[in-house]
Amino acid sequence: MDFIDDYLPVSLHETAFIPIIYAQGSDEQAKYWGPLAEKHQIIGCYAQTELGHGSNLSELETTATLNRDTDQWIIHSTTFTASKWWIGGLGAVSTHALIQARLIIDGKDYGAHGFIVPIRSLKDHRPFPGVKVGDIGPKSYGGFSKIDNGFVRFENYPIPRENMLMRFAKVTRDGQYIKPPHSKLAYGSMVLLRSHMVRGAGITLARAATIATRYTTVRRQFHVPTSRKDAANPALETQVINYPMVQSRLFPIIAQSYAMLAAGNKMRSMYESMLSELMQGDVSSLAEVHAISSGLKSTCSTFAATGVEDCRKIMGGHGYSYFSGISHLWSSYVPSNTYEGDNFLLTQQSARYLLKQIKVATTDPEKAERCSVETVNDWLRPEVQLAAFEHRAGRLVGDLAIAAVQDGMVWSDLNLECWKICHAHSQYVLARSAIEGVAGVRDQGVAKETVRVLKRLSDLFALHTIQASLGDYLEDFYVSPAQCQSLRQQIKNLQDALADDVVGLVDAFDFPDHFLGSALGSIDGNAYQRLWDAAQKEAINQVEVVDGYKEYIVPILNQYGAAKL
Amino acid sequence: MDFIDDYLPVSLHETAFIPIIYAQGSDEQAKYWGPLAEKHQIIGCYAQTELGHGSNLSELETTATLNRDTDQWIIHSTTFTASKWWIGGLGAVSTHALIQARLIIDGKDYGAHGFIVPIRSLKDHRPFPGVKVGDIGPKSYGGFSKIDNGFVRFENYPIPRENMLMRFAKVTRDGQYIKPPHSKLAYGSMVLLRSHMVRGAGITLARAATIATRYTTVRRQFHVPTSRKDAANPALETQVINYPMVQSRLFPIIAQSYAMLAAGNKMRSMYESMLSELMQGDVSSLAEVHAISSGLKSTCSTFAATGVEDCRKIMGGHGYSYFSGISHLWSSYVPSNTYEGDNFLLTQQSARYLLKQIKVATTDPEKAERCSVETVNDWLRPEVQLAAFEHRAGRLVGDLAIAAVQDGMVWSDLNLECWKICHAHSQYVLARSAIEGVAGVRDQGVAKETVRVLKRLSDLFALHTIQASLGDYLEDFYVSPAQCQSLRQQIKNLQDALADDVVGLVDAFDFPDHFLGSALGSIDGNAYQRLWDAAQKEAINQVEVVDGYKEYIVPILNQYGAAKL
Repeated sequence: MDFIDDYLPVSLHETAFIPIIYAQGSDEQAKYWGPLAEKHQIIGCYAQTELGHGSNLSELETTATLNRDTDQWIIHSTTFTASKWWIGGLGAVSTHALIQARLIIDGKDYGAHGFIVPIRSLKDHRPFPGVKVGDIGPKSYGGFSKIDNGFVRFENYPIPRENMLMRFAKVTRDGQYIKPPHSKLAYGSMVLLRSHMVRGAGITLARAATIATRYTTVRRQFHVPTSRKDAANPALETQVINYPMVQSRLFPIIAQSYAMLAAGNKMRSMYESMLSELMQGDVSSLAEVHAISSGLKSTCSTFAATGVEDCRKIMGGHGYSYFSGISHLWSSYVPSNTYEGDNFLLTQQSARYLLKQIKVATTDPEKAERCSVETVNDWLRPEVQLAAFEHRAGRLVGDLAIAAVQDGMVWSDLNLECWKICHAHSQYVLARSAIEGVAGVRDQGVAKETVRVLKRLSDLFALHTIQASLGDYLEDFYVSPAQCQSLRQQIKNLQDALADDVVGLVDAFDFPDHFLGSALGSIDGNAYQRLWDAAQKEAINQVEVVDGYKEYIVPILNQYGAAKL
Repeated sequence: MDFIDDYLPVSLHETAFIPIIYAQGSDEQAKYWGPLAEKHQIIGCYAQTELGHGSNLSELETTATLNRDTDQWIIHSTTFTASKWWIGGLGAVSTHALIQARLIIDGKDYGAHGFIVPIRSLKDHRPFPGVKVGDIGPKSYGGFSKIDNGFVRFENYPIPRENMLMRFAKVTRDGQYIKPPHSKLAYGSMVLLRSHMVRGAGITLARAATIATRYTTVRRQFHVPTSRKDAANPALETQVINYPMVQSRLFPIIAQSYAMLAAGNKMRSMYESMLSELMQGDVSSLAEVHAISSGLKSTCSTFAATGVEDCRKIMGGHGYSYFSGISHLWSSYVPSNTYEGDNFLLTQQSARYLLKQIKVATTDPEKAERCSVETVNDWLRPEVQLAAFEHRAGRLVGDLAIAAVQDGMVWSDLNLECWKICHAHSQYVLARSAIEGVAGVRDQGVAKETVRVLKRLSDLFALHTIQASLGDYLEDFYVSPAQCQSLRQQIKNLQDALADDVVGLVDAFDFPDHFLGSALGSIDGNAYQRLWDAAQKEAINQVEVVDGYKEYIVPILNQYGAAKL
C-alpha cells in the first residue's frame, strides 16, 4: 500500500478498523473480529462523523439502545443530521462499520461508544434492511478521489449486544453498564492516529521539498549582475535556488521536514510506552501524551499543508502542472488540517493541560526575562533557542491567565489564545526534538561534517520559527531591535552556509523517482524533457485535429461566414 | 461567459488576444484583425511563456528573423526550452497565436515583440507545416480543467512582415526598425491585465466569504456555557460563527473583499486615464500605474488565494466536499499568484519605483516617529491608520537603503526586502481605497447606519492588516506594548460590533445561488439538506451494489474463503 501511494477504499480498514478492534475490543472480540479483518473476509470502516457533528463526540445523534428481550442494540439515526457522513470506505466497499453511537439503557444516556455494525451482506453486498448507505460525492481539489467516502442512516437496526467494543466499558446480559476504569481511555486511539500524523507530516513535506529543491536547482532565470553566483558559468542565467527569495522560503521547509521527522520518532516511542501502560490500566501518562500529540498534530499538519503548497509556488508556473507531482500530494494532504481534530479546535483541550504545566512568565515588562543573545553567533546556542520558545509559551500563558479573569469572559472566548499557546508549546517540542536528533547523530559517531550540516538545519528551524513570531518577543521586550537584526543576520548566514548542501539533504530522504511521481523533481534533473515527454503521452495529443472540431469549433468559426484571409 | 463562470478555451481570446490587437496593433491592423477576432472567424491565444522562461521577456528564445527577400518573418524555436508552453486555448482550439518573439534584423536583436501567427488551417484545423502544437496535459487541483493549455514549436516558419504588431515599434518594407516612442509602452497591456485582477481578487474572495459566512451561521457546534450567546435558544448549540476563532479569521476576509473591490474601482479609472494618455503618446503616468498595479496584483491575489482556502477550512469537514463550491473557485484562482508576474518576483521593479517615491523614515529609533494612539478608539481615526501604513513603508525603504550599500551586496540579494516594501505600499493603497470608499458612500447620502457598518469594516481591514505586521511596528518603537494591547482590544470590539451585520454584508454582494454553486452557502441556509440531495444525485448512488463488486471486491473477501459469521 505504501508503494501504491494513494488513499484506497481499504485504507481505513487497515489504519483504523483493525487497530481499534485490537485496542478497544475485549480479548475475545479481538480474537473473533481481528483475523476476519486481517484476512479481509470482512472490510470495515470507522464511522464517527455525522452530518451535524464531527469532533464533538458528546453531541453525536446516532443512538444504540439496548433491547434486553432480544439481547440486541437498536442502532438508530435519530435526526436527519445524525446521518453518518464522510466515512472512508463506506460509500461502496465496506461490509462492516465501526460506528460511534450514544449508548442508551433504560432511557439513560452513557455517551458515545464503539459498535461493530454489519452494513452490506457478505452474500451479495446488498445493504441490510434498515440501512441506507451510499457515497457522499467528490471531494475538493480532486483529493481522496480513490476513496469511497460514504454516508449511512439506520432505521431501528438491530445488532447483537456482543458487537459493542468491550475492552473498557462493558454491558452485561442483564443490561448492567460497567464503566471504564478511566473516562478518557477511548482517547488512546485518537492519540495513535495523531502520533502517526506527526511523522506523516514530515514525510509529506520532505517529498515536496525534494521536488522543489531539485527543480529550482535545474531552473535558471535572469542574468544577475554578480560575480559571486554561478561564477563558473557567466553565460548561464542564475539558478533559481540561488535567490534569497527562494532560499528564505525553501530552506526553512527542508528544516521543518527534518524537525518533524525527529519529533515523529519521539512521538512514536511516547505512544508505545503509553499503550503498554494503558493495557495494564495505568493512565498516568495519557493526559500528557494526548496534549503533546494533539498540539503536534495541529502544528505539523499546518506546517506540512502550507509548506507543500509553498513548494509548488516556489516552482513558478510549471509547479501548476499536474506533472509537478506536488498537487495530488497537497490535495489529499490538506484535509488532515481538519480531520482527526480540526487544527484550530484541537488545541483547546491541550491548552488546559498546558496551563497547568508551563511555568507562567511574568507579564510585567520591567521584571521580565530577557534574551541573552549578544553576538550573532549566540543565536546558535541550543539553550538560547529553547529558552526563547519556553519564554514565549510562558508569556502567552500569563496573558491568558489575565484575560481569563476579566468580567464576563467565558472559556470559549479565549480559543484564539489557547491555540497560540498550544502552537508555541509544539514549536518548543519540535525544536527540542531537532536538537536532540542532532545530538543523537553526533553520539553515533557520524562524520563531523554531516553533523555540522544537520546542526545548521536544526538552527535554521529554531531561528526561522522564532522569527515568525517576532512580534510576540518584541512586545514584552524579550528581544531587542538589535537582537532582531542579529537574528535576521544569522538566518541569512545559515541559508548561505546551507546552500551547497540542500540537494544532498533532500537526496538523503532517498525517495525513488517512482514514488515522487514528478517530471520536475526526478533525481537526474532532466525536468524540461520529462515535462515534454509527459505531455506527449496525453490522449489528446495522439490525434492531429481534436475530437469535436466539426461539431463545436466549425460552427463558431463560421457563424458569420468563413474568414477570407 | 460570466454566467458560465469557468475558464474556457476562448477565454484568452476575449481577455488577451482581442484587447492586445487593439492596444498594440496599428490602426490598419486593428481594422483588419479586430473584426475577424470579434466575430470568432479566427480564434486566438496569447503566447508569451516558454518552457524555459516566463515573466523574463528579455530571455525568450523564440525568434522572428526578417527575410527581406520574401518580406517575411521566420519564426523559429531556437532551443528545446524555446517551446511555448502553458498557452491557454492553444492546445486544441486556437487558429492563431499572438506570440512574443525576439525580433532580429541582419543579426541584430531588438528584443521581444508581438506577432500574429497562424497556427491551424481555417480549412481543416490541421497545424501548418513547421508548426508542432499540442496540449500540455492536466493542471494541479483540477484547475483550468476546461482550458486547453498548449505548447507550440516553430521550425523556420514564415509569416508576413505585416503580422508584427506595429502601433509602437515598426519595421518597414526595406527592413528598417523604427523604435517605439517609449521603451515601456508594451507594459500597457500588462497593466490592463493586472488592473482587472485587483477587482477579480475582490470578487473571488467575496464569493468564498459569502459561502463561509452563511454556512458558519447555519452550523452549530458545542454547548458553550454562556448566557451571552444564543441566549434565546439555550437548547441549541452555539453557532460556529459566534466563536472568536472563527470571527478573527472570517471577518477580516470580508473586510479584505470590500477593500479590494474599492481598490479595483480606483485601479480601473487610473488605467483608463493612463490609456487615453498613452494613445496620445503621453507616458508620464505609466511608471506609477505600472508600479501600483503590480503591487496590488501581488498583494490582492495573495489575499484572495489564501483567504478562499481559509474560508474552506473555516467551514470544517464539509468544506472539503466538492459541493462546498469553494474548491473549484480556489483551484482555478490560485495560479493567479504565479501568472501575470509571479507575486514574489513582480514586486522587484515596483520597489525601485517606490524607492524614489516613498519618504524615507529615519532608522534611528530614538528620533523616529511614534504612533499617536492614546485610547482604544484612537485606532479608529483614518489618519492614524494611514500614518501607520506610511510609516512602515518608509521605514522599510530606510532599511533597504542601508542594506543596499553594504559590501558586496547586489540588487537581487535584496528581493525579499523589495517584496516587503511593495506589499507595505499596496496595503496603504488598499486601506486608503477603503477609507475613501466609505467617505464616498457617506457623501452619496446612504443611510447613516449603513455607513457606520462600512466604516467598521474599513477599520477592521486597516487594523487587522497592521496587526499582521506588528513585529515591524514594534521593532522601531513606532507602537508600544500598550498600543498593541489597545489594537487587539479594538479589533475585538470591531468584530463584536460587526457580528450582527456580516450576513447582511455578504448578502449585499448579491451573488445568485446558481453563481455560488454551493450546497453549503445558498441563501436559504438549508445546507444539510442540499448536501444530502447533491450526494443522492451521484451516479454511484443510483445502483444498490457498486459496479465491479464481483470482479474486484469478491476476490478480496474470498481469498481465504468466505467468512463464517
